[in-house]
Amino acid sequence: MTVVSVLGATGSIGRSTADIIESQGETFTVEAVAGGRDAAALAAMALRLRARFAALADPAGLPELRDALAGSGIASGAGEEAVIEAASRPADIVVAGIAGSAGVAPTHAAVRLGRTVALANKECLVCAGEAFMRDAARAGATLLPMDSEHNAIAQALGRHTADDVESMVLTASGGPFRTWPAERIANATREEALAHPNWSMGAKISVDSASLMNKGLELIEAHHLFGVPAERLSVLVHPQSIVHGLVGFRDGSVVAGLACPDMRVPIAHCLGNPHRLATAAPRLDLAAVARLEFEAPDLARFPALRLAIEAMNAGGAAPTVLNAANEVAVAAFLAGALAFGAIPRLVEETLERMAGRYGSDAPRDVAAALELDVEARRIACEIGGIAAKLTD
Amino acid sequence: MTVVSVLGATGSIGRSTADIIESQGETFTVEAVAGGRDAAALAAMALRLRARFAALADPAGLPELRDALAGSGIASGAGEEAVIEAASRPADIVVAGIAGSAGVAPTHAAVRLGRTVALANKECLVCAGEAFMRDAARAGATLLPMDSEHNAIAQALGRHTADDVESMVLTASGGPFRTWPAERIANATREEALAHPNWSMGAKISVDSASLMNKGLELIEAHHLFGVPAERLSVLVHPQSIVHGLVGFRDGSVVAGLACPDMRVPIAHCLGNPHRLATAAPRLDLAAVARLEFEAPDLARFPALRLAIEAMNAGGAAPTVLNAANEVAVAAFLAGALAFGAIPRLVEETLERMAGRYGSDAPRDVAAALELDVEARRIACEIGGIAAKLTD
Repeated sequence: MTVVSVLGATGSIGRSTADIIESQGETFTVEAVAGGRDAAALAAMALRLRARFAALADPAGLPELRDALAGSGIASGAGEEAVIEAASRPADIVVAGIAGSAGVAPTHAAVRLGRTVALANKECLVCAGEAFMRDAARAGATLLPMDSEHNAIAQALGRHTADDVESMVLTASGGPFRTWPAERIANATREEALAHPNWSMGAKISVDSASLMNKGLELIEAHHLFGVPAERLSVLVHPQSIVHGLVGFRDGSVVAGLACPDMRVPIAHCLGNPHRLATAAPRLDLAAVARLEFEAPDLARFPALRLAIEAMNAGGAAPTVLNAANEVAVAAFLAGALAFGAIPRLVEETLERMAGRYGSDAPRDVAAALELDVEARRIACEIGGIAAKLTD
Repeated sequence: MTVVSVLGATGSIGRSTADIIESQGETFTVEAVAGGRDAAALAAMALRLRARFAALADPAGLPELRDALAGSGIASGAGEEAVIEAASRPADIVVAGIAGSAGVAPTHAAVRLGRTVALANKECLVCAGEAFMRDAARAGATLLPMDSEHNAIAQALGRHTADDVESMVLTASGGPFRTWPAERIANATREEALAHPNWSMGAKISVDSASLMNKGLELIEAHHLFGVPAERLSVLVHPQSIVHGLVGFRDGSVVAGLACPDMRVPIAHCLGNPHRLATAAPRLDLAAVARLEFEAPDLARFPALRLAIEAMNAGGAAPTVLNAANEVAVAAFLAGALAFGAIPRLVEETLERMAGRYGSDAPRDVAAALELDVEARRIACEIGGIAAKLTD
């Protein structure tokens, strides 16, 4: 019997995690679930998974949550402290599926308790990578990457350490603008940017996939997660999204992680660790796929990826600023206040403006990274003439 | 310091193994080398690798071997017993690179001593798989597959056992006749059959690659080596020969082993186990390769693969008979005594003729498998009207 807590239980990762847990009969019990604002959905998930505790981030939803759970025996709470309690309760695996900077504090809490954390939150590593990984190592936490690219790399890496690794490659579908000329990309509309060819995702990540910033952020994550030097990491455009990541070893071998694009696969891999759980995810049929294509990314047409690579190489505060400025720019684009081509420009200007002030030191701890994140958002809004409320 | 013995030191595997050993500075010392008939080449290899013992299978070459090693301090011997001594001397890894049935007894000797054996000999598993694996398990031997397909699968499998595995796929280039119609294949010449698109290999294995029998024999090897049921094993045609093998897990993940076609890669993987040795093998550049293609094999045009799959499914004595009859048929084809299309027909007739006599029992031990192999060769010669000397 494996005890699991699910943070971000009402989101996409949480729902797929619940599907996997339910499909495994008595293998798992759920200690805690945490959600954001939707009290009804969280209560339903807590009941469905027979959790012992449900935590809602938004205190305003507590009465509704309490009502919905009345008589169930499931304890509940609301606010940031309740979510941290959900993350901190004893569990064999904590699924860290809260998106955005809201996910950092609870994930960090679980990591500092030395838990095994299935990580689906990007910001822990992009915004606060050095401090987060240092705290994970100190506490003896185990991080299992749940993102499909990093999960594929973890599978390909197996028991090997970074010393054996010569290269790590994350694939990118190339997004909806893969074949577009630069001028057309610069003027892409919201609808065009949201039309991702292979995955159905939220708006923010869809825009990041269209600009390839998403892949750049994933490079930064991989750099911290696997402890591989920046110069050994790269991106390969692979329109079919079947090969998700590859590891090249010192002997010339390459091991690749493949799967049909379905989040249940990496989630089941994390939950089953070190064994494998049976899933109903679609099976890869390479003879039916017939052809896998690969091409180098074009950093001229996709400057966001260039900026992310430069930030990874620079290290220090640069990835935190990059991520914060990109959040602001994407929110402004989605609100119609910024052209698609202006997203990387705003990110680059924010990086330039803040370069002198923060130098090359990484934020000294996770709290400092989150403070820098707020400051970088403020400056990005200022540069872009963007109202701060757009980026909440 | 890792102690290695190299059986088949003067052949292709042996020479590539020597390249890897030499490239690693003081990492390896060589205990024994064994060769077939070329005393001069074996002596040169023994001197090059500073081996302590050199064994030549052909007793007639002993005086030449002794002369060439005079004053070197390297002990020598000749005949089957000397080769078995080379296999039996204490070593951390025994590279089993003697091709054909001549490789079975020395490899078996190393396995029965519980050694770690880097296996490049096919016959141990194809001709005597059940008995060989049983003896390996009893002695606690570790088998590291050195063939590129099985090595790729071993890398993809990692620490997982067969219980986690839903499918194992070996890729085949498809050989020179991949796109040919059946009538043209049936009448292919010796030269056409030897023109393999991606690998430079010996004549026997080139013909087997053209008929896809080679891939069928590899399926039988994988079945024994990885303990995976026959129905979970399959072949995928992949003309670029970049992906060598794939493992599909119960959760829907697929892990694949890739490399440029270069034997140094799997050899270095085996010798470096559980770490990785740096090699000078060419690196895979997927953006330059650009496209990987996959298609199901056509069992109608390639009946040898169908026969091998049927033999694997039947188990018992069938794989031993299949392999022996194929050896006879290929030798006759190479000697101009048999058409290409007659190879699978002779194999099928031999299997049919012997089916009633051996039923479904696998040979009870390795010696019985080798006896059955001799008997099947005799019967194949008889059916095909082939002089036995052609198949020596």
